[in-house]
Order: sequence, then structure tokens, then C-alpha cells
Amino acid sequence: MHFMTALKAAWQQRNSLLCVGLDPDPAKFPAHLQGRTDAIFEFCKAIVDATADLVCCFKPQIAYFAARRAEDQLEALIEHIHAKHPAIPVILDAKRGDIGSTAEQYAIEAFERFKADAITVNPYMGRDSVDPYLAYPDKGVILLCRTSNPGGSDLQFLEVETPRGRMKLYEHVACTVAEEWNASGNCGLVVGATFPAEIARVRELTGDMPLLVPGIGAQGGDIAATLAAGRTANGAGLMINSSRAILYAGVEANGGEEFAEAARKVALDTRDAINAHR
Amino acid sequence: MHFMTALKAAWQQRNSLLCVGLDPDPAKFPAHLQGRTDAIFEFCKAIVDATADLVCCFKPQIAYFAARRAEDQLEALIEHIHAKHPAIPVILDAKRGDIGSTAEQYAIEAFERFKADAITVNPYMGRDSVDPYLAYPDKGVILLCRTSNPGGSDLQFLEVETPRGRMKLYEHVACTVAEEWNASGNCGLVVGATFPAEIARVRELTGDMPLLVPGIGAQGGDIAATLAAGRTANGAGLMINSSRAILYAGVEANGGEEFAEAARKVALDTRDAINAHR
Repeated sequence: MHFMTALKAAWQQRNSLLCVGLDPDPAKFPAHLQGRTDAIFEFCKAIVDATADLVCCFKPQIAYFAARRAEDQLEALIEHIHAKHPAIPVILDAKRGDIGSTAEQYAIEAFERFKADAITVNPYMGRDSVDPYLAYPDKGVILLCRTSNPGGSDLQFLEVETPRGRMKLYEHVACTVAEEWNASGNCGLVVGATFPAEIARVRELTGDMPLLVPGIGAQGGDIAATLAAGRTANGAGLMINSSRAILYAGVEANGGEEFAEAARKVALDTRDAINAHR
Repeated sequence: MHFMTALKAAWQQRNSLLCVGLDPDPAKFPAHLQGRTDAIFEFCKAIVDATADLVCCFKPQIAYFAARRAEDQLEALIEHIHAKHPAIPVILDAKRGDIGSTAEQYAIEAFERFKADAITVNPYMGRDSVDPYLAYPDKGVILLCRTSNPGGSDLQFLEVETPRGRMKLYEHVACTVAEEWNASGNCGLVVGATFPAEIARVRELTGDMPLLVPGIGAQGGDIAATLAAGRTANGAGLMINSSRAILYAGVEANGGEEFAEAARKVALDTRDAINAHR
């Protein structure tokens, strides 16, 4: 699969900008999955199968698997998505960042072991820490730019002097990725829905570059403002992520075996709320 | 183990500022380990046992384990270090960085699953992305500041406007960690040996904060300049990392079963070269 081609096809053919984030927290699983050794896989698989026709991509968060020694379930999950829903790209949310020789190992982890179609990467260590991912031209490389969390401002919102003039650090990252790191056309950026003005600024600086936008749902970002700020001329360009609000909708409602149907309903409503503003 | 207490004791009692980085690359293993399913563990264990009296800490790089589906061997390795060399702290080099709820999972991965005594963390996402690690006051939290790689300058060397005035981004990170994030006294910083002037600046800004210094050996950093720039008044304050130059010394020499003895010799020479400048 070529990540960018698959993403664009998914935006159009599935009529969705929704990314379902897979952050499996066993403490929130429904009762019938509690205690099963494959609970993480079974929970995520049910969510995936119930929402696959509503999304443009899935985004498993590796930390939730790693904290529970469940890398094998992450492998099985991505294999399942590729086998059953082959049109849908998978972004491994890993936010890796290290020197080139180590980044090569992380690229092997993401693309060859887990067989993800894209990865999120931290830009703090600069160009040679990103090159090993860029060396896979079919894979997506999605750099952190303006993150959705409160501390995102601590560094990213500082004013910096750059060869392009004075700008905020996140703007410098956006320009650097768009103008220097994207030679293979396989880069994207993470910009939080909690900061629509900055989504607009990143859109202005990067043309049609795909933006992964976390922060709607549990984090409180606004869908209308996100679309107004970030959609491209053809009404796409965004992967709008929701994790907890979808995953645990059913668990919070009744804790029963219908959790996936409840998740589907929230995913459907979210997709439609997004589409209402395209 | 309390990381900072153990580190200071190791500096003094073992008379060493050397950190041996465990970056196991099976392609470079000696012939008798090739093809064994536990080769990564056995290679690292032999290095650890051959160098334990010469180091102040060990630093396994998780990417090398994750790329080869060898998390179980990393667990076994850290368990071995704690069991056989209980005075030596283990830094998990993971450079994680994510929003708070995800960082909680990474903290569980590092401190509860792998039982590391410290972790390296990326500061790009700000305070709330670091808090979950700081919440373990016995553990060390070592923030990337001025990394040793060429691209380290892309962001870290930019001039930024901060509440403390105009400075380089890495200086802002150093000040922020020293003045705001280090309330429990469990923070350290990564500053590359390839930039001794910046080591001196970070030392000036952070008092006696421990600095993890990669970049000697394969990356070409200078030991004398590193010590002159970064040692504290009592001749400590540094964890000077060497990985490849030590790990593969014997493999490159003869490829035989004496690889650990060859690694020990380089570790001994490196420790003594460091001590000559304390």
C-alpha cells in the first residue's frame, strides 16, 4: 500500500475524514472481555470491524500495547486491518525521535515488524533523525508540529529566528517539513484541534499537506472550527482523530457486549458532523 | 533503587563516569551467537558482566530490541543487571514524548514493565507530557536538550524569545528543566559530546544536574573537551555514553568468543581516559 494514495482514496471513496484512534485501556473494557489474554486484540478488532466503513484511517497508539506487554496483539491487530479492510491505511502513533542509526531501528519496528503504513515522528532531533523513515517512500511520515495538549505551547509556541524570518517554532517545523523534508511527498503534520488558528496557519504554510488532527472528543476540540481552518479546497486534507469518545461510548453506556455498536454510532455521528462542515 | 542516589554512589564508589550503551545489532554479533533465539540477551549479558565494575550506569536502547521483537530479552537483561549488579542504575533510552494520558502508559512501560531506573524523554510536547514520568520520584527523567547528531541544530540551535530573554532553544530547555520540572530533583539532560561549548553552557545554566553525554567513540566526540566543559566541582556530574565502540570492539578484531573481554578492554581504556581529565 502507498500511504498517501490510499489516504486520498479513502477520503474520497469512503466520504470520511475520521481517524479512529486505537488506545486500548483494559480497565475500560466491557465485562465479557475482562481477564482474557487476548482482550486488547479482541476489543480493538471489534471496534475496527464496526467502524471500518466510516473512517479514512486507523491510528493505534503503541504505548497502550507496550505498557501491557501486548506487542503481539498490536501485530495481530494491524494484520487483521490489512487482511479484512485492505483499503484503510494504518498510522502507528509512536512519536519516535532519535539519531539516524537508532531511527533506522525504529523504522524497522514500525514498517517491517508492525507493518504500519505511516508513523508519527518527533522533529526535535532534526533532519537526520527523520531520514530513515523518509527512506521508505511508500510510507507516511507524520511530524509533530502543534500538539493538542496544554504543554504544547511550552516549546512549540516560542518565537524563533529562522532563515525564513521570525516565526513560532511550530511554524518553522511546518515550513521545514513542507519545503525540505517532503521531497518524496510522503510527509504529514500533527496539529491539534484545540488550536484552530494554528491549524489555519499550518494549512497556509503547507499547501495541501495532510494534517493529522487529534483533540476532538475527549480533549474538547471544535469540529466546525477545525474544518474551517484546515480543510483543503476539495474538502479533504485532514485526518481528524477521535479515540476515547468512540472506543468507550458503549462501555460507559452499559458495559455490555454491544460496545462496538455503540462505538459505531458515535463514529457515524462524528463522521457526519465532520462532513457537515466540508 | 533511587536513581539519583544510586548514580552518585556509582560515580564515587566505582570511580567511573562511563555509561555503556547497549545497542545490540545482531548483524555484528560474533559467530557463535548467530542464529540463537536468545542472542540479543546473551550478547548484552556478556557485555554487562564484563564491564559492570567499570561503569556508573547502563543504557539499553529500546529501538534495537523493538526492531527484532525482542522486548522479552530486554526485560530479561534489565532483570539480570538488577540481580547481579544491584548497585548499577539502568537508563532506558526510549526518548518518548506524548500527551499526558499516553505518557502515563509509556511510564508504565519503562518503569513497571521493564523496571528501568531512568528514562530519556523528548521535551517537544512540554510539561504535561513529562509529568507522568516525574510522578515517579525515585526514577530519573533525562530530557533531550542538545543532541549529538548533525540535525540536532535544526531546531535546538534556533534563537528563541523566552520569558527569561533571548536564548537558544536548547538553553531554554535546560533552564525550563532546571527551574521548573526538577522539583523532585530527579531530572537530567542529554547533551552531546560533539558540542562541548554547549555542554559548558548547559552546566552553567543547571548547576550540578547530571548530564547524559552521548557522542564519544563512534560519533567522534572529544573526552578531554567534554570533561572540561561538563564536570562538576567534585569531578562528576556526567554519564559519558559509549555504545558501538565498546560493544563491537572484539567482533571487529576477531569475531570470536572473546568479544566481551575485548569490550572490557575498551571500556577500561575509556573509563581511564575519562578519569585522566576529572
